Amino acid sequence: MSAHPPDQALGDDAPLSDARVVRSWQRNAAPWTRAVREGAIGSRIAVTNAAILDTVRAVRPRTVLDIGCGEGWLSHALAADGMICAGVDVVPALVEQARLAHPAGTPPGDYRVASYEDIADGALTDPARLADWRGRFDVAVSNFALIGDDAVARMLAAVPALLAPAGHLIIQTLHPVVAGGDAPYVDGWREGSWSGFSDDFTDPAPWYFRTIASWIALVHAAGFQLVALHEPIHPGTGRPASLVLCARPRA
Amino acid sequence: MSAHPPDQALGDDAPLSDARVVRSWQRNAAPWTRAVREGAIGSRIAVTNAAILDTVRAVRPRTVLDIGCGEGWLSHALAADGMICAGVDVVPALVEQARLAHPAGTPPGDYRVASYEDIADGALTDPARLADWRGRFDVAVSNFALIGDDAVARMLAAVPALLAPAGHLIIQTLHPVVAGGDAPYVDGWREGSWSGFSDDFTDPAPWYFRTIASWIALVHAAGFQLVALHEPIHPGTGRPASLVLCARPRA
Repeated sequence: MSAHPPDQALGDDAPLSDARVVRSWQRNAAPWTRAVREGAIGSRIAVTNAAILDTVRAVRPRTVLDIGCGEGWLSHALAADGMICAGVDVVPALVEQARLAHPAGTPPGDYRVASYEDIADGALTDPARLADWRGRFDVAVSNFALIGDDAVARMLAAVPALLAPAGHLIIQTLHPVVAGGDAPYVDGWREGSWSGFSDDFTDPAPWYFRTIASWIALVHAAGFQLVALHEPIHPGTGRPASLVLCARPRA
Repeated sequence: MSAHPPDQALGDDAPLSDARVVRSWQRNAAPWTRAVREGAIGSRIAVTNAAILDTVRAVRPRTVLDIGCGEGWLSHALAADGMICAGVDVVPALVEQARLAHPAGTPPGDYRVASYEDIADGALTDPARLADWRGRFDVAVSNFALIGDDAVARMLAAVPALLAPAGHLIIQTLHPVVAGGDAPYVDGWREGSWSGFSDDFTDPAPWYFRTIASWIALVHAAGFQLVALHEPIHPGTGRPASLVLCARPRA
């Protein structure tokens, strides 16, 4: 008989925490994979898939690291453009999906299971652990995958070492001013919701809200300078559908 | 008998144009001076005056250029901190007010009449014209004064030459996402309004709306890199009251 119920085996059981983000995604890997592959997320089809693809393509990378790659659609699309893609995600079931669906006839993809804490602690720059990918990538991209608090900040600080010279960090995230609802415009954990998704989803992940100022400060604190910021517009609402940051390591 | 009615002597008479911005401020110099000095603009008293002062003070400048200085309150406040301030504005009546009200017992202020077009065309780096202020300022600040379109973009491109080494450009402006109302979130001229101001105001200036992405791109195009962005919160609404950009010339 285990001393801990299964939930606690995944770590901190606080309702609003980096550990709960991971737990939720562990539980929803299968419906999430279906939702992405069926094009069930309207804003992605209408706006944000193209926004992240365009931003990555614009810097013409040869090699891309997809951080929080999920079931892999972004890496698969970039591989179809001829880019050499590696993906990391904390959820083994999603990494397996990314591996299985990597498109034939493209450069091989390299998908690994790693938490943001692992990355922060050097798992991607240590051949004795996961990989020695130091200086390997022209772009590190994270598409709606920077959901947490400290885990995100610590992970980002490890990214400059993974980038090739003149490499870029590209992040797409919810547009804070639009996605924040009526809550005060201050950083902090927010309750999650699967509103608009199918009934197969359970245990929505909390998410850590950051203001635009805080996103820019976060990137800066990780050793980057902002090169550009985009606010892709949802054609249905005329409002920003997301925030895209493009940054480079500071000299 | 003049060939042109007085309005046209001020330039382009198009209803939404840089020239109309200037014309409106020419006409409202007196009530504007009263409104600022009586503390009649609630958001300034509650939030944005402190936001711009704090941002300027944080970089500890010795010399400041106040672009679009108006009746001079910001330069006066910074002079009271011991900074050496110069101010430029296109409206002679406002420059005169700034000169007259410069506080005694502080470093002398230097207030000049110049349009953004004049600055763009080198009037502040040419001793045969207005001044040779090349490399003179630790901070160039513009507080809710970048209202127009091309005139603003051209003027900003002349600012790096006015800054001392390690100098900063600091801009406070309306927060686009909050101030944009229900209009589509795209750059463009918007009709002005004196709603909330006294009946002494007439002929409201149009203003050129820029998205956050466009503000950052504007600063970048002028030769700067963004160092920080702030979103001061209005305590009454919990929403951003303004956008503050802090940038330095790119190497």
